[in-house]
Amino acid sequence: MAEIAVLGHGVVGSGVLEVLISHANSISKRAKEDIHVKRILDLREFPGLPYSDCFTKDFQEILNDPEIKIVVEVMGGLEPAFSYVKACLENGKSVVTSNKELVAQKGAELLALAQKNNLNFLFEASVGGGIPIIRPISQCLAANEMTEIAGILNGTTNFILTKMIREHMAFDDALALAQKLGYAERDPSADVEGIDACRKICILASLAFGSHVYPDSVHTEGITAITKEDVGYAGAWGSVIKLIGEVKKLENGRVHIQVAPMFISRESQLANVDDVFNGILVRGDATGDVVFYGKGAGKLPTASAVVADVIDCVRHLKSDRKILYWEDAKPDYVQPWEDTPQDVFVRVSGSGESDTLFDLVQQVFPNAVRLIRRDEETGEAGFTLSQISEKELRGKIPALEERGLKLENRITIADF
Amino acid sequence: MAEIAVLGHGVVGSGVLEVLISHANSISKRAKEDIHVKRILDLREFPGLPYSDCFTKDFQEILNDPEIKIVVEVMGGLEPAFSYVKACLENGKSVVTSNKELVAQKGAELLALAQKNNLNFLFEASVGGGIPIIRPISQCLAANEMTEIAGILNGTTNFILTKMIREHMAFDDALALAQKLGYAERDPSADVEGIDACRKICILASLAFGSHVYPDSVHTEGITAITKEDVGYAGAWGSVIKLIGEVKKLENGRVHIQVAPMFISRESQLANVDDVFNGILVRGDATGDVVFYGKGAGKLPTASAVVADVIDCVRHLKSDRKILYWEDAKPDYVQPWEDTPQDVFVRVSGSGESDTLFDLVQQVFPNAVRLIRRDEETGEAGFTLSQISEKELRGKIPALEERGLKLENRITIADF
Repeated sequence: MAEIAVLGHGVVGSGVLEVLISHANSISKRAKEDIHVKRILDLREFPGLPYSDCFTKDFQEILNDPEIKIVVEVMGGLEPAFSYVKACLENGKSVVTSNKELVAQKGAELLALAQKNNLNFLFEASVGGGIPIIRPISQCLAANEMTEIAGILNGTTNFILTKMIREHMAFDDALALAQKLGYAERDPSADVEGIDACRKICILASLAFGSHVYPDSVHTEGITAITKEDVGYAGAWGSVIKLIGEVKKLENGRVHIQVAPMFISRESQLANVDDVFNGILVRGDATGDVVFYGKGAGKLPTASAVVADVIDCVRHLKSDRKILYWEDAKPDYVQPWEDTPQDVFVRVSGSGESDTLFDLVQQVFPNAVRLIRRDEETGEAGFTLSQISEKELRGKIPALEERGLKLENRITIADF
Repeated sequence: MAEIAVLGHGVVGSGVLEVLISHANSISKRAKEDIHVKRILDLREFPGLPYSDCFTKDFQEILNDPEIKIVVEVMGGLEPAFSYVKACLENGKSVVTSNKELVAQKGAELLALAQKNNLNFLFEASVGGGIPIIRPISQCLAANEMTEIAGILNGTTNFILTKMIREHMAFDDALALAQKLGYAERDPSADVEGIDACRKICILASLAFGSHVYPDSVHTEGITAITKEDVGYAGAWGSVIKLIGEVKKLENGRVHIQVAPMFISRESQLANVDDVFNGILVRGDATGDVVFYGKGAGKLPTASAVVADVIDCVRHLKSDRKILYWEDAKPDYVQPWEDTPQDVFVRVSGSGESDTLFDLVQQVFPNAVRLIRRDEETGEAGFTLSQISEKELRGKIPALEERGLKLENRITIADF
């Protein structure tokens, strides 16, 4: 019998209990041991549940219980989750978490602590919900040099963009619909500002390339500035707009990492990842492109990923640790985003016909390639530029303004 | 230092050596030990290679070498691969293989032998080439009850069908092109008759549902009967034709399993898996649909999957075995294919206008739903039927023939 504790009985926590109970037989078979939830930490009361007598409001009761060897942290947020997880790892308890903020901010420290004490710190559920991605990257792709990871990592924003693309909704209307359907929270900023996607690409980047990348070192754009006009120009380029978290290994040993809405060619495998689904592309030198697709969030998908980690923990209690590990951040490891050349789409406004505006654009950018969207209106023009850095682009704004042109938006064009 | 041997220096075998040499540093780091190829078995001579002195023509030299703890079998074919692998497992050597025929025919026996002797028998590369699929099914989805697996498992046939769909090529022309490009062998029957896909769905079915399914118990259709007309009717239904290996768990405890070309709705995640790529959909009760996409074959993708297994083997030499296991086949485990109702497309020919032919069809199948393809010609008609078994459909052929209608083809319509 493996005794475990669960910290937090919210959406994911209650899902973990549900999966453990409903799949008890097959889980015992796979873990080669029964798994029993001895304690659940939550400040609220949950009367009337079959496991109501397991609840405690006192974390020390879990920490000081020598029978509990595995602790599942599904509270979310940095504190008190971090203090609790750290205490567990310092006291001989392996930890399984779904908490992406915790892993993105404290992964290197907690992995080092786990290694020192010969314990597991597992977090399959922190990225991609029920999609297996942490393990495949760390194990199956072990014989590859990974060169790039790019993913649609946030279901809420993908739902909003899908509505903007397919049903020509405006951003605000699509957000309101997402909130009504329960896909977006009342304060949607962590999703729509790209913060959630940023945490996830940090975790994937750290895992794939071995050095921790902290969220505050990553250029992060959300989707709030995306308009119907941008969606139209994307269509004219043969693409759709998706919020992408992307990291590339550069030849200088650094990484190029960003979270931003991007033009994704309709030929790309990520272009068809719609609604609340996630899709993650992993590019390796031997495997080529491998794509993982599925529900990136939700109670049961996330809970099943947590439970799979628990099973793995139980199986490895008496033997060696799993392979997950990365080092702390290296100085100057993240390539300055502003200096990195990328293909971009640019939309400008001014007074006059689009033809006239584009003539003015060409005075500033002789190599600009014009895009014409369906229903293009007077006073706007769109074009693409190849391999230009943000710094260089911004440097041209005065020249645009001199010609009466206002830069309305710029959107990166993906190369996958 | 972990000493290994490689049986077979063909495409995959030489790829394994290439990956082991080119990625030696990162592999040693992940395996926590250096990996050294001590012997390579091949009847041919390979002078001038950096590892030319490792070759042997005598399997006993490998079998009787106590230093060699892991044997990589990449010869392909059932014999002598089976005898060699069995001998290795009987003599304390773990085995990694890419040989789908071996696993599909002898998996249960070899897994039982490995378990008995506390060894590993790993075969990630046997399905999906470089796509991680065996491990995710066995580990990450451990907390799920899987209900269905469906996949495009053969790149050669997918290339041929893609050419037929996109460029309106006839089957023979598309096959000739595939042969010219090296995607199809001179004798293409294992691919185009569905034999290769059958072996792979047998492996996935055995793994997902725990009982061995042997290839000869699986209804297997190839793509040789697919015509341009069928492709046209599929388009009219909003779908594409793909060769699918599919297994479903039924409520009676049996499995419904088949390899057949199917109409795949353009909305399905598998519809966009084109050219030589593979895509595998895994449906679980907790995760929902998860899809894995990538190159299903090729020297380096397959070799990297083999090497990932070798790394895993090295890491587990001193600890417990991996979780892979299934039992031998149960009697009456496979639901008789002919009795299983499915949605189907049917194409008939006769003399007369399509309208007239369809009127006759309706006399036999009152609920038939007509499809009209672009460029439909006199003398043909297409329609769909819902939930009809093969037995029932065949029973209606006399009634069709009485009305001067010939059943030209029937194609299953997928429900994913």
